[in-house]
Amino acid sequence: MDSAIRQLHGFFSPRSVAIVGATKKINKAGHVIFKNFVENKRRGVFKGEVFAVNPNEKSIFEVPSYPSLKDIPANVELAVIVVPASVVPIVMKDAAAKKVKDVVIISSGFGEIGNHELERQVISIAKKAGIRLLGPNCLGVYDTRTGVDMLFLPETKILTTGDEVVATPRPIPGDIAIVTQSGAFGVSALDYLTGRQIGISKFVSFGNKSDVSETEMLGYLLHDEETKVILLYVEDIKSGREFLKTAAQVTMKKPIVALKAGRTEAGARAAASHTGAIAGQDKIYDTVFEQTGIIRARDMEEFFDAGKALAMQPPAAGNSVGIITDAGGPGILAVDECELKGLVVKRFSDQTIRRFEKMKEEGKIPKFATNLNPVDITGSGTSEMFELVTEVLYEDPEICGIIMLGLHHTPALQEDYIDRVARVANKYDKPIVACDIGETEMALHTRSRFDRLGIPAYSSPEDAARAMSALVKYGQYLQRAGCFAEYMREFAKSKHK
Amino acid sequence: MDSAIRQLHGFFSPRSVAIVGATKKINKAGHVIFKNFVENKRRGVFKGEVFAVNPNEKSIFEVPSYPSLKDIPANVELAVIVVPASVVPIVMKDAAAKKVKDVVIISSGFGEIGNHELERQVISIAKKAGIRLLGPNCLGVYDTRTGVDMLFLPETKILTTGDEVVATPRPIPGDIAIVTQSGAFGVSALDYLTGRQIGISKFVSFGNKSDVSETEMLGYLLHDEETKVILLYVEDIKSGREFLKTAAQVTMKKPIVALKAGRTEAGARAAASHTGAIAGQDKIYDTVFEQTGIIRARDMEEFFDAGKALAMQPPAAGNSVGIITDAGGPGILAVDECELKGLVVKRFSDQTIRRFEKMKEEGKIPKFATNLNPVDITGSGTSEMFELVTEVLYEDPEICGIIMLGLHHTPALQEDYIDRVARVANKYDKPIVACDIGETEMALHTRSRFDRLGIPAYSSPEDAARAMSALVKYGQYLQRAGCFAEYMREFAKSKHK
Repeated sequence: MDSAIRQLHGFFSPRSVAIVGATKKINKAGHVIFKNFVENKRRGVFKGEVFAVNPNEKSIFEVPSYPSLKDIPANVELAVIVVPASVVPIVMKDAAAKKVKDVVIISSGFGEIGNHELERQVISIAKKAGIRLLGPNCLGVYDTRTGVDMLFLPETKILTTGDEVVATPRPIPGDIAIVTQSGAFGVSALDYLTGRQIGISKFVSFGNKSDVSETEMLGYLLHDEETKVILLYVEDIKSGREFLKTAAQVTMKKPIVALKAGRTEAGARAAASHTGAIAGQDKIYDTVFEQTGIIRARDMEEFFDAGKALAMQPPAAGNSVGIITDAGGPGILAVDECELKGLVVKRFSDQTIRRFEKMKEEGKIPKFATNLNPVDITGSGTSEMFELVTEVLYEDPEICGIIMLGLHHTPALQEDYIDRVARVANKYDKPIVACDIGETEMALHTRSRFDRLGIPAYSSPEDAARAMSALVKYGQYLQRAGCFAEYMREFAKSKHK
Repeated sequence: MDSAIRQLHGFFSPRSVAIVGATKKINKAGHVIFKNFVENKRRGVFKGEVFAVNPNEKSIFEVPSYPSLKDIPANVELAVIVVPASVVPIVMKDAAAKKVKDVVIISSGFGEIGNHELERQVISIAKKAGIRLLGPNCLGVYDTRTGVDMLFLPETKILTTGDEVVATPRPIPGDIAIVTQSGAFGVSALDYLTGRQIGISKFVSFGNKSDVSETEMLGYLLHDEETKVILLYVEDIKSGREFLKTAAQVTMKKPIVALKAGRTEAGARAAASHTGAIAGQDKIYDTVFEQTGIIRARDMEEFFDAGKALAMQPPAAGNSVGIITDAGGPGILAVDECELKGLVVKRFSDQTIRRFEKMKEEGKIPKFATNLNPVDITGSGTSEMFELVTEVLYEDPEICGIIMLGLHHTPALQEDYIDRVARVANKYDKPIVACDIGETEMALHTRSRFDRLGIPAYSSPEDAARAMSALVKYGQYLQRAGCFAEYMREFAKSKHK
């Protein structure tokens, strides 16, 4: 780890942290963040030291509180600042004097509301002292493994009925890093991913990005062993040249999916009044993303869906997709979306069609199954049939990715088809995605079982097709960049770990 | 009701029904369908007479079983046929002799697998006898109010854990009719809509549509008081001229949302091998839908989302949309999607901006709120602020529709904002749609509460924008057709019923 990377590492895994603005007052950000650290330390998850800074308290949660950073009788690696904007420069000077390495400024009230001078002042102190700065006006960091948790939004809310319900959850540990300019979008992402049982490695909200930018964060995550895929939400990217260089390095090893808001002129105008992003250059982003192999999502759902696919499945070696279904209509919807996304759903090879015809003769799949692509085993399809047909498509060298539409409603199909398909899939390094439509227990169970067995499952044929499209596009990029084989080797290694 | 309509009405509300192929054998379609009718009759939901036809049984569920339709000692209005395809012509002859009015052939094994001659034979018998025929190869009818329920797919399934879970649910009664060519798509729709708590009026799966087609069904639903919106899934439309005429009549009174599979060449090829639909004419469908005011959904999710919006909200009088948010990033995503869909998110009028500025001075909304469009009351937004801001946009005559992004994660926002917004919305006839992102209890609760108060809620900013787009497009069509005012009067009446 070089020293720049090591300094960024302090945001995620500090040996000691001070919460400046820690307080006993419930619902205050300084209360919630301090409590997160203290509780994670008690549970043995956070391994570092925790200090409170608040001149008006002697101790909080039985942890001593100090009047200022300078009064702490130990090293402080990371300071999390949650005091009013006007006081932040004083705290920053203390941090400099204390030789704090990393600072997160949660507080808002800087450039985003026109207080540019205040923000410049804070940056200047940091630069002189060699402090790396995240924020201001951000949600900071959440790391699922180290216990660093700066999320201050209420974990539960009370309804008018009196019931207390979960409002801001923490996703399970996983392979996806979330890097976001918008805190609100970030917390929505955590909520969404928790519900979908998609695990994350790290969460970083960089707000005004006065110092640490998305570019540096990508560079850091390239070296982060916990992170396999990066989801990046941005409204603008400032250091274009640096970004191009770093992103291209990262995508040779790890896929990046970007959701860039402000695609339209009106959207860009809205982004400008939100974060001061420069308007009207959206086409440049298309070019930048294309050049650097970043997959651009067209909307929020595709953003998460693509991330899930890339975390679970290898990229595709080509754009030719085979579709397996027990439902004609949804099969056609998947074909349409594949083709609209630039994938190819062509008639199966003669050899594959002959294999299906033979299976019909032997009574292994229904006589009236259609088998040109999609292969539709119809409502009479059984678990055995799904397994057999899946194997045929895996063995077809012309098929580079498989979409499995196993609608659960038909009478003959049993749950074990999921395990059978997964067993076949495990033998090959060709990507597969699944779909079951519906919101009943059976549909939720089906998708979740696929997910657990490493096959990303989606709730519409089009969502599944779009996920496959991400796997194809990333594969195409890796091939252009000459590192497809290398990526596949690494993917196989991490899969069998 | 004219006689043709009255005859179609027999499919949904027969005074007597016979299930030909009723059986005691569990899991058989003839068992499930017969049981549905018998149980709905016992529960007092189905009001007609129910008969079983099965030569091998004396009675099923204590209901007498007859050797053939002709042996039933009473009138039979509707026959549901669930016997092997080869036997169907004999049953049809019995139905003709018995003067049955309507027949649903659930059985498959006809044109869809190449048995065209058998299908022609069946049609010919029906035509001669004046019988109207639904199917063959279909799921038939499910009516949420009359207790007609031909869904034969297993309502629950047993997991490998031994747990029994719901697999094919029945949606609650509501305003949306589902008309579908694909049975598999239809049952997926029921599953999806149940989970989303979207109610339906009627469900019709017409399979091979050898007699009753989508066109006639639209004509019937035009007169159905329970149906306010029609969702139409098709792979092809055969009687083009008739369809144009009928659809145009229907859409003056009731919105139709279409999901037409086979948009691409490969998709059309797949449709051809699925139902024999004619390939390669998708652009014609665009024209047909545009001319007749049918809203074409680009995918499954948009299909349902648009239906929900049109069932709950009036169409928009223009394409200018105002966006309210407490989260900058998601606000921009909504703007982008609106503009990409052809809606306009322009800077608010000077008057509206002045009103917001005044509210800032008076401390009614945060000083640092942005208010050009979107109006972003930020993470400090309270329920009162949402209410005030909503009222301003309702009073702005330049704003024709409102998108409300109330992300629940912020500390200050309480659940009662939903009721406050709904109270304001109720005073006006301008459409509004809502969004909250996430899958926690709080997010699910928020969306469901909006839904119950008549404001359709969605789980992503883009979904909400696409729903608004359907309301705008339908409004534009009604204005072109000169019946906007009339539709609005009827909508207001049904709203206050």
